Amino acid sequence: MKAAILAVGSELLGTDRLDTNSLRLTELLERYGVELRRKSVAGDSEEDIAEELRFLFSKVDLVLVTGGLGPTADDITREAAATALGRGMRFDPEILAGIERRFREHGRQMPAVNRKQAEVIEGAEVIPNPRGTAPGMRLEADNGSTLFLFPGVPTELEGMILSHLEPWLAERSGGASRETVTLKIAGLPESTVEERIAPAYAEFGREWITILASPGEIRLRATAAGPEPERRARLEAMKARLAELAGDAVFCDREELTLEAVVGELLRAAGATLTVAESCTGGLLAERITRVAGSSDYFLGGVVSYDNRIKSELLGVEPALIETHGAVSEPVAVAMAAGVRRALRSDYGIGITGVAGPGGGSEAKPVGTVHIALAGPGDEVEHHNVRVPGDRERVRWQSAQLALERLRRRLLEGVSQC
Amino acid sequence: MKAAILAVGSELLGTDRLDTNSLRLTELLERYGVELRRKSVAGDSEEDIAEELRFLFSKVDLVLVTGGLGPTADDITREAAATALGRGMRFDPEILAGIERRFREHGRQMPAVNRKQAEVIEGAEVIPNPRGTAPGMRLEADNGSTLFLFPGVPTELEGMILSHLEPWLAERSGGASRETVTLKIAGLPESTVEERIAPAYAEFGREWITILASPGEIRLRATAAGPEPERRARLEAMKARLAELAGDAVFCDREELTLEAVVGELLRAAGATLTVAESCTGGLLAERITRVAGSSDYFLGGVVSYDNRIKSELLGVEPALIETHGAVSEPVAVAMAAGVRRALRSDYGIGITGVAGPGGGSEAKPVGTVHIALAGPGDEVEHHNVRVPGDRERVRWQSAQLALERLRRRLLEGVSQC
Repeated sequence: MKAAILAVGSELLGTDRLDTNSLRLTELLERYGVELRRKSVAGDSEEDIAEELRFLFSKVDLVLVTGGLGPTADDITREAAATALGRGMRFDPEILAGIERRFREHGRQMPAVNRKQAEVIEGAEVIPNPRGTAPGMRLEADNGSTLFLFPGVPTELEGMILSHLEPWLAERSGGASRETVTLKIAGLPESTVEERIAPAYAEFGREWITILASPGEIRLRATAAGPEPERRARLEAMKARLAELAGDAVFCDREELTLEAVVGELLRAAGATLTVAESCTGGLLAERITRVAGSSDYFLGGVVSYDNRIKSELLGVEPALIETHGAVSEPVAVAMAAGVRRALRSDYGIGITGVAGPGGGSEAKPVGTVHIALAGPGDEVEHHNVRVPGDRERVRWQSAQLALERLRRRLLEGVSQC
Repeated sequence: MKAAILAVGSELLGTDRLDTNSLRLTELLERYGVELRRKSVAGDSEEDIAEELRFLFSKVDLVLVTGGLGPTADDITREAAATALGRGMRFDPEILAGIERRFREHGRQMPAVNRKQAEVIEGAEVIPNPRGTAPGMRLEADNGSTLFLFPGVPTELEGMILSHLEPWLAERSGGASRETVTLKIAGLPESTVEERIAPAYAEFGREWITILASPGEIRLRATAAGPEPERRARLEAMKARLAELAGDAVFCDREELTLEAVVGELLRAAGATLTVAESCTGGLLAERITRVAGSSDYFLGGVVSYDNRIKSELLGVEPALIETHGAVSEPVAVAMAAGVRRALRSDYGIGITGVAGPGGGSEAKPVGTVHIALAGPGDEVEHHNVRVPGDRERVRWQSAQLALERLRRRLLEGVSQC
């Protein structure tokens, strides 16, 4: 089956907005083995939308449209679809009653404009929208193509995808859907990951394994297709083999889990607490750790010691140490980690000092030079000196990433993963 | 003039990538008064691209294509465009010599596959690419539509836009381009901004003024069209009138400037220093302040006091105060601000404590309750109690935003803006 996605809305043709609904729809199409051939955006013009739909009907079997189902004058997807299909419209009193009820429940009267949301194209199956006033529709074009109309509001779209699109796709795929699993990796360059997993390419086929690299993090995605139970068995085999090849660099096998969340779970499991002392990352490490809800269970707090005086006064870093080695140095990173752990009485302490740039670099310590130290739970401190390429934002991000990855590995010595 | 943008690349039809080149192209089209009618994405299929181009030639005057000009087998935009136009290809030895020279300069020999990048469609003007191997092209279709082919790499595209597309658009617009100016506002809800600037709608026309709202920040965009010098005069008049109506809530008149950068400039101008004490924002405020290069000139550092013990030990907040009023309270926020200012010896000190959620809320202090205090430069402390709607991320972001905005206003008492 071939598919196309059309997003409707003049605001999507401006400079401030991108259609992102299509990413969610694409995910679903991929899962059921439907080939997405085109994505497009049309403005709020009945003629443009109708022409686009006719063009799409001639090319693909399934057309998914989002947007333009609202109550205002520029919402004309319904009319355009009727025109493209050569169909009339009928008024559905049941839909109207539902919209009126919805407004009443919110203590308001339905504005007259909403009446047009009860207009249904002849032959359409109505898709109820429990989260909004705009119902969706499913239609068969005369040439056999199927058309779905959905609202553009992501939460409303999501509910209707789950209730109507996914079951429709599942039925047509005869259970032969696709499934993916993602392994997330920190602290290794893409080329090393590529090299390590090369045997899996030969064993499972290169087209089923994808490497997605972003600064400081790599996602390894494995896909399996076909009917159950073979599909699941194959996916589990790929996942196990990739994890074996990539080794303990894999921090997680769930797309939505972040490194800071994984580290948080390990801290919680160990009943351990953490504090951080940051210079070049300027609070980013603490900010990432506390993005995780419930992080107050293991994160006590931190010190952003931008000024050297704070390194000495709050963290107990000897001024002589800074004078001798410079603020960006191994001894200072080590003293920061040990100092914050001691001052704030935590099990683990992290110290980061570096040159984030764009200024401040020298020949001996160019921009991107970063020292990371990890203290605890005994009195031992480990140290890592790295050179991060890229701009200020990237240096800061990857420094925090590397600090979290070192802590994860330390916590793993004794605990099981994820 | 009507235009369409086509992005080519199968990776843009997957779940991980969105075409963002079109935003840059849209910006340029808007500036020269060209109406963008459609955006679309096609995969690396010669047939799909050719069909798409034929469809677009029948609808618009200008077609901008990005991607698919590389040297590998799946780069087939050149061939597809030749097919759509019904033209042949010619081999250009000069382009080949340029590509070979480029490789030599990087100490490598040109791979044989790159030879196809020297293929030019009959009748095309070649657009040199100083930043890569893929040259672009400009062509006139038989029906009079103009087609531009550009590479998909953003930096390469940018150079070729400036050297060839912008001059071409400028020539055709006869100087009657558009210009915009953006005023950025923090600390006011959209409805209040809308109400305040209503007179400007009447004076300049509603279609020339746009409000773009995101959590904690509003952009007010004014656009003027037509020939110079009237255009510029009109834009200046709109800007002055909007600034007058919106008042001192406007923190900046440059799209790319952030609130933290504006606050930083004010601190620098005042020769003042800042420290922060954060609970619910968990380091986000410090992180935003230090995103700005050179922020070490005025930002000394901060304390993330997630644990109450740190509030007392590092910031000098009386444990009795926390016990009596709770950690999320006006007295504690005030003590945090005054405490961090005193402990780290800065001119200004900010204290933030609140319930970021999703847990931790109560009837008296629901999720979103945030207390912000600002101490200095004398011993006075101002306090703001707010209720931020939304999820954890939004509560944290808006709390930091509001703290920065209060500091900006305090600094403004005596200094000029932006």
